[in-house]
Amino acid sequence: MTDWKVHLETNLPLYLEELTAFLRIPSISSLPEHAADVNRAADWVAERLKTAGIEAVQILPTAGHPVVYGQWLHAPDKPTIMIYGHFDTQPVDPLDLWTHPPFEPVIRDDRIYARGASDDKGNMLIPILAVEAMLRTRGSLPVNVKFFFEGQEEIGSPQMPDFISAQRDLLACDMVLSSDGGQWEENQPALNVGRRGLTALQIDLQGAEQDVHSGTYGGTFQNPIHALAQLITSMRSPQGKILVEGFYDAVHELSDSERAQIAEIPYDETQYRGELGVGELYGEAGFSTYERAWVRPTLEVNGIWGGFQGEGIKTVIPSLAHAKITCRLVPHQEPDQIFELIATHVAQHAPVGAKVSVKKLAGSADPFQIPFDHPGNQAARVVLKKLYDKEPYIARTGGTIPVCGSFLKYLGAHLVNFAFGLEDENLHAPDEFFRLSSFKRGLNAYGMILEELGR
Amino acid sequence: MTDWKVHLETNLPLYLEELTAFLRIPSISSLPEHAADVNRAADWVAERLKTAGIEAVQILPTAGHPVVYGQWLHAPDKPTIMIYGHFDTQPVDPLDLWTHPPFEPVIRDDRIYARGASDDKGNMLIPILAVEAMLRTRGSLPVNVKFFFEGQEEIGSPQMPDFISAQRDLLACDMVLSSDGGQWEENQPALNVGRRGLTALQIDLQGAEQDVHSGTYGGTFQNPIHALAQLITSMRSPQGKILVEGFYDAVHELSDSERAQIAEIPYDETQYRGELGVGELYGEAGFSTYERAWVRPTLEVNGIWGGFQGEGIKTVIPSLAHAKITCRLVPHQEPDQIFELIATHVAQHAPVGAKVSVKKLAGSADPFQIPFDHPGNQAARVVLKKLYDKEPYIARTGGTIPVCGSFLKYLGAHLVNFAFGLEDENLHAPDEFFRLSSFKRGLNAYGMILEELGR
Repeated sequence: MTDWKVHLETNLPLYLEELTAFLRIPSISSLPEHAADVNRAADWVAERLKTAGIEAVQILPTAGHPVVYGQWLHAPDKPTIMIYGHFDTQPVDPLDLWTHPPFEPVIRDDRIYARGASDDKGNMLIPILAVEAMLRTRGSLPVNVKFFFEGQEEIGSPQMPDFISAQRDLLACDMVLSSDGGQWEENQPALNVGRRGLTALQIDLQGAEQDVHSGTYGGTFQNPIHALAQLITSMRSPQGKILVEGFYDAVHELSDSERAQIAEIPYDETQYRGELGVGELYGEAGFSTYERAWVRPTLEVNGIWGGFQGEGIKTVIPSLAHAKITCRLVPHQEPDQIFELIATHVAQHAPVGAKVSVKKLAGSADPFQIPFDHPGNQAARVVLKKLYDKEPYIARTGGTIPVCGSFLKYLGAHLVNFAFGLEDENLHAPDEFFRLSSFKRGLNAYGMILEELGR
Repeated sequence: MTDWKVHLETNLPLYLEELTAFLRIPSISSLPEHAADVNRAADWVAERLKTAGIEAVQILPTAGHPVVYGQWLHAPDKPTIMIYGHFDTQPVDPLDLWTHPPFEPVIRDDRIYARGASDDKGNMLIPILAVEAMLRTRGSLPVNVKFFFEGQEEIGSPQMPDFISAQRDLLACDMVLSSDGGQWEENQPALNVGRRGLTALQIDLQGAEQDVHSGTYGGTFQNPIHALAQLITSMRSPQGKILVEGFYDAVHELSDSERAQIAEIPYDETQYRGELGVGELYGEAGFSTYERAWVRPTLEVNGIWGGFQGEGIKTVIPSLAHAKITCRLVPHQEPDQIFELIATHVAQHAPVGAKVSVKKLAGSADPFQIPFDHPGNQAARVVLKKLYDKEPYIARTGGTIPVCGSFLKYLGAHLVNFAFGLEDENLHAPDEFFRLSSFKRGLNAYGMILEELGR
């Protein structure tokens, strides 16, 4: 066993203590009351980078949550690899569905449970520790390394495009390795060659100026909840096709070879339904489940509210009704353009008698693709084959890493997925966890890919 | 001026103090955490009846909130009049729209502001004070009087049908005067000859077993919010006609003379829109606004919720979505039958991929009608003409007093509207108030109608 692997194995108990401390910080980026916690998480990451021997560690401010940067640039003639991750987390509601409090990490059955365990604190700690092990045991790294950790991934990285554009000298690199993402299964690796983008919006409707008695006035004017239901219904066919005019115009149909690549990946509908706990699947006609999840755009209401939500009844016609909507976008769709199409649809379909407004929410992200034969992908493939003793699937992900598009646009750097989360780890849901087996494998994997890229 | 009128006028400042104390009790019947406050309000009413000289005062338990009963039965050969009202209130949300805290009454501009000021604490205190004034000044009443005050009107009086049926000997009477209701305008009285009934239900949908990541899975299975929006949309046409099969089957078309009676009441659309603060009205084609509000049934969502409601975005597909619905019913519609029709509609229109359940909520009420020439109505007409110097309109109300049907069914007693609330007093809404001018007028009116009924 190489020296740095021994170091990693020896120090594992310490790393789990550190991960636990990191997970205790409730760095929920979407909630203003947790802004200070996001800053605390940034401090924690910066300190950990310094301890690891990384240089020029800085907490860089943005108009929102900060970025933590660090570098080690003492490998002349070797490529410069930027390692990406994020230290913010999703919110935790519904809190009552958590077995343990989300920011009191618990290790059970070789898994660590906490909000952010898999997405992305567990995963982003891995490359820091792997680099530290190499520096402690050898005093150097096989490539130049930059670290770029952000605190706003879960809200769609609103300040990142401007930030990356402004800091293009500092961030210049040959490619990005992303610690945010995952593998296919515990025993099956995957190369991720595409991610969906995102556009987010909120629709607000008002009927009467305030809630009014449903007996006195009911039947004579528009109820904004009914109007909102009509609007939502107008946006998708019962079969799941999006009816917003122009929505699919920019979407390229898949080539036969792309469809074949996806079809090669084993798909077990019973298992897929089991992950969701649903009796049946549902989606746009003419596409397989993976195609629906990876290369077809979506329009989904993430939240709806209006009127009385308590026990029993309250006989009001509410004044206000609201919905939050996000669309997952596929290559060639433009987030701003899709927002405009939806805003136009809402204006054209606005039910009589309700005031309707649409506002864009932070979180736009371009869709992302990387060529299969990119050298970073090929290095990842070599390492994954060694670790899993299997050829990785050529897969995609339905989720978004908003900065991917900006790295390509401003730095000319493709992003290689190199992370060890798994889809069943309750990302964005109660009882999020990260497998300790993935954590250990990831530590070795990061050392190995840096060596591979240094060849 | 008669003796009891002088007594009422002299004691007005004291009455306002008493009303303020009564309004301080947050007797919200729909919220379990306020059950003790509903009991406190019952105690307050019972004590006030005793102070007034009413006999046999009792707080009668039910399976839910209690009833306060009292009587004065020393007028042989005179009719027995039961006076009805309720001491529970609506909830207060949205709390941030109140100018003053809802249970800290404030008198401003000759109005008293508080939750329950008009509906119904201010109105129900009136007959107690009028009877007290007569007993203090004369030692007797011109008719026999029973008081029946309930604590569950705002949740649809779920225990009242059984209670009234079981207590039919105690409650036997010739007619009921209701202190819950109102007049047309400050200077225009009305006889109310009809009220709508109610049926209430909740629809719950589940998609995945828990909230899941909208990137990972979005596009492959049903989102329960979209399914709920579809269901709600399927229940009403965009023009407001209810599409639940059989919904209108029991509804009798209005006779020409009934339509004429309603058409005689002046209607000012600008003013009506102004009360609601809407730019346009909306409703079932072929009916006037008053017909839509009084004699046509409705189906309205009172509340909807599911998924993320916080700031910013949360990219989940929620597991659960919910809606609370009430229908206002018109004569000959049966609440239970309408519930069954809706449950059938939901089962037949349930979108693929979501588990749907429908549960009935407490609050059923039969629609109500009283003959225009009923002696109680005629007595009310005489008094109102004297007080307002105007013939009352023959109107109806879109709202429900659930016990009306039970009084007729079990006691054979019609209910006469004799109350002094006005429609603009923000019933069920923020900044509810009661006019002090109405309070004073009501005190005289109750004395006068008891004298009229004793003739």
